[in-house]
Amino acid sequence: MINSNALPESALPKGVRDFLPLKAAKVEYLQQQLQQVMAAWGFRPVITPQLEFFDQLEKGLGGDLHARAFRFDDRQSGRLLAFPPDITPQIARIAATRMRELPLPLRLSYSGKVLRHTEEQAGKNREIFQVGVELIGLGQPEADAEMIAMAIECLQGSGAKDFTLDIGQVEFFRGVMDGLSLSSDLARRVAGAIGRKDSTELRALLDEAGVDEAAREEVLALPRLFGGREVLERAAKLVKNQRSQRALDNLTQVLALLDRHGIAEYVTFDLGELRGLDYHTGITFQGFLPGYGQAVCSGGRYDGLMANYGNPAPATGFTFDLLNLLFALDRALEDQVKPRTDLLVYACEGAVLRAQQLTPRLRAAGFSAARDMLDRSIDEALAYARLMNYRRLLVVPVGEAALRLVNPSSENEDSLTLEELLQRKEL
Amino acid sequence: MINSNALPESALPKGVRDFLPLKAAKVEYLQQQLQQVMAAWGFRPVITPQLEFFDQLEKGLGGDLHARAFRFDDRQSGRLLAFPPDITPQIARIAATRMRELPLPLRLSYSGKVLRHTEEQAGKNREIFQVGVELIGLGQPEADAEMIAMAIECLQGSGAKDFTLDIGQVEFFRGVMDGLSLSSDLARRVAGAIGRKDSTELRALLDEAGVDEAAREEVLALPRLFGGREVLERAAKLVKNQRSQRALDNLTQVLALLDRHGIAEYVTFDLGELRGLDYHTGITFQGFLPGYGQAVCSGGRYDGLMANYGNPAPATGFTFDLLNLLFALDRALEDQVKPRTDLLVYACEGAVLRAQQLTPRLRAAGFSAARDMLDRSIDEALAYARLMNYRRLLVVPVGEAALRLVNPSSENEDSLTLEELLQRKEL
Repeated sequence: MINSNALPESALPKGVRDFLPLKAAKVEYLQQQLQQVMAAWGFRPVITPQLEFFDQLEKGLGGDLHARAFRFDDRQSGRLLAFPPDITPQIARIAATRMRELPLPLRLSYSGKVLRHTEEQAGKNREIFQVGVELIGLGQPEADAEMIAMAIECLQGSGAKDFTLDIGQVEFFRGVMDGLSLSSDLARRVAGAIGRKDSTELRALLDEAGVDEAAREEVLALPRLFGGREVLERAAKLVKNQRSQRALDNLTQVLALLDRHGIAEYVTFDLGELRGLDYHTGITFQGFLPGYGQAVCSGGRYDGLMANYGNPAPATGFTFDLLNLLFALDRALEDQVKPRTDLLVYACEGAVLRAQQLTPRLRAAGFSAARDMLDRSIDEALAYARLMNYRRLLVVPVGEAALRLVNPSSENEDSLTLEELLQRKEL
Repeated sequence: MINSNALPESALPKGVRDFLPLKAAKVEYLQQQLQQVMAAWGFRPVITPQLEFFDQLEKGLGGDLHARAFRFDDRQSGRLLAFPPDITPQIARIAATRMRELPLPLRLSYSGKVLRHTEEQAGKNREIFQVGVELIGLGQPEADAEMIAMAIECLQGSGAKDFTLDIGQVEFFRGVMDGLSLSSDLARRVAGAIGRKDSTELRALLDEAGVDEAAREEVLALPRLFGGREVLERAAKLVKNQRSQRALDNLTQVLALLDRHGIAEYVTFDLGELRGLDYHTGITFQGFLPGYGQAVCSGGRYDGLMANYGNPAPATGFTFDLLNLLFALDRALEDQVKPRTDLLVYACEGAVLRAQQLTPRLRAAGFSAARDMLDRSIDEALAYARLMNYRRLLVVPVGEAALRLVNPSSENEDSLTLEELLQRKEL
């Protein structure tokens, strides 16, 4: 089918899209690949609603997402409703309430769309396709390693190559920040400078705050603490505070587990990375593909979230941004994933009845098949079959005459009986 | 996994639900079964957005749905946005604009959620899961028959038995109403009485309107024109107007095609049935399962809708209400669809490393497997495995000792090597 995704989309609000068959087939393919890995690891699907009471939802939303939820008054209840901007708080609510009688751990997966307000003219997606998992009830490093290993297997399963999984640890950062005793405003500016790896501004802010020399050294090192596994050793020599040291121990244990699975090669570290959501409490990670700037997946530990719904439990998880993954892999999927139909069944004059009768038998034999009902010539039907990605045009003549199986691209053709066609495994 | 769907849902707005693993697995199963039939008939997926400009959307919404859309002002554009209450208008928009360069017919499928306001305390779903198809560009009876045959195959594929597909024809009804020359208010009341099959009220209304005897006879027959194929003959004797006669010809042709496929046994007719959406222009149909009052699927011809988006074309389609289908089939699916995991991998003391190393090999061999990371006894792990629907607990002892494969239900067990386990096709 022609790629008409290039046509203008002015009939749609910004930040949402139509997915025509070529793209939609890729979306579905990627979703299936991810779900297959998740099921293989023992995760089971839950489906979350697209309407929630905002007061329930906001218990689990970080500051950023809080402001980005689509909200409105409920005609029925008079309460404030929202369309969820993130699925993790919904899973936390469900696990903490409706599944609280079940023994831990819970391994849950989900696939759905969320909506988020974006800044004007930001050009960002407002509709986000999330496919993810939550592992609830386990605080062990092995659980963190499970999430990272699964994310890597998901990336492999979706056909990605040369990807990296960039690992951070919010506790490491918080340990360093603890030593500074900054006002919350200054802390935010310091965090911003670290996130941008802007050492000049960082120095100016530390001067302004008048932090002591030891703490200063730790903070100034943060923007440079990224790279391979040697980062963990460098960091260990730098930090003196216990909170950061515990975070490093945790990272070292997880790395050892990834080594054991032979997947540590995909991993990089960034201890100055603060991209995690507000609810994260330990290891965080984001997956990147070469040549694509935005993360295709992100995850991490959130040990405080379940308590917000009345049932404290450690938890970790990750989510794929399916559209980012699609855009990063779009070309690589081009030949692999195409919406195709095996047969277009064309009736010659007088052969409509025969064509109608044999079409269901083709489907029963495992072929996908559509009837060409328009009153047109074989050449017109062939042109249609070519444009619409049918594998073959099946020309059905009157009586008992042999069927003609025409390849719309090459126009090569076979002549065969219905029985011969039904026996075929390949066209 | 325990069915906790019975727990209270007071944390959620009315008309939406959480789907825990047992139900979610059934939803996904039904969705896959339907999509498989749709692909076999040559239909290709499109994915529609969950935000639209309301002025675009309303071009394709019937009066009922128009009022039931969730609407709000767009912060970005200042225009009125809506969450689509129906996917068909979205497909019509896409087909008429972004796919207008493509040759007809288009065979498109979709799967998504829509949101609809419901009356207070109606207890109806506000979130509706739709899986459907649109066949655009064909006005032939064979296209109507294709929709009905596909809907029947979808019902068979989802495991439904003893279902009926109830067929109407809005043109038949309109032909009869043409002869009455009623005011629009009276016409609506007459249609209501016919829909309720209330002959007494219908007579009173016709008296009030003073319609002539011939027209009166046609209208009074409508509430009784339901049942098997004999309805078409009864109707043919009754109506004199050409519009209704053409509608009957159309029904007769479609029935002949259904006979040809051997599926006419599933079909009933109701010519007084007016449940179609406002945009319908010909044959309409609804699928019902025994013991479940609401339609699980509905569809019909809508030859006027594409023109509303600037590109006139005949069209027909149908949609499954996935949750109605789920509730109607819930019990029948109980044993068939269960979220299960093959193996829970338990490490005896000192065997954690061995357990961690063999788990990925189990997955590579095709088993689904989760690691039991908690520090607990074999009995505790067995109880967990039983409650959470694992097929087997795999007990991993230290060193080279044989693995134990324990059935959590029967507590029967096998002793075997890893190599033996990896060779197994069935547990």
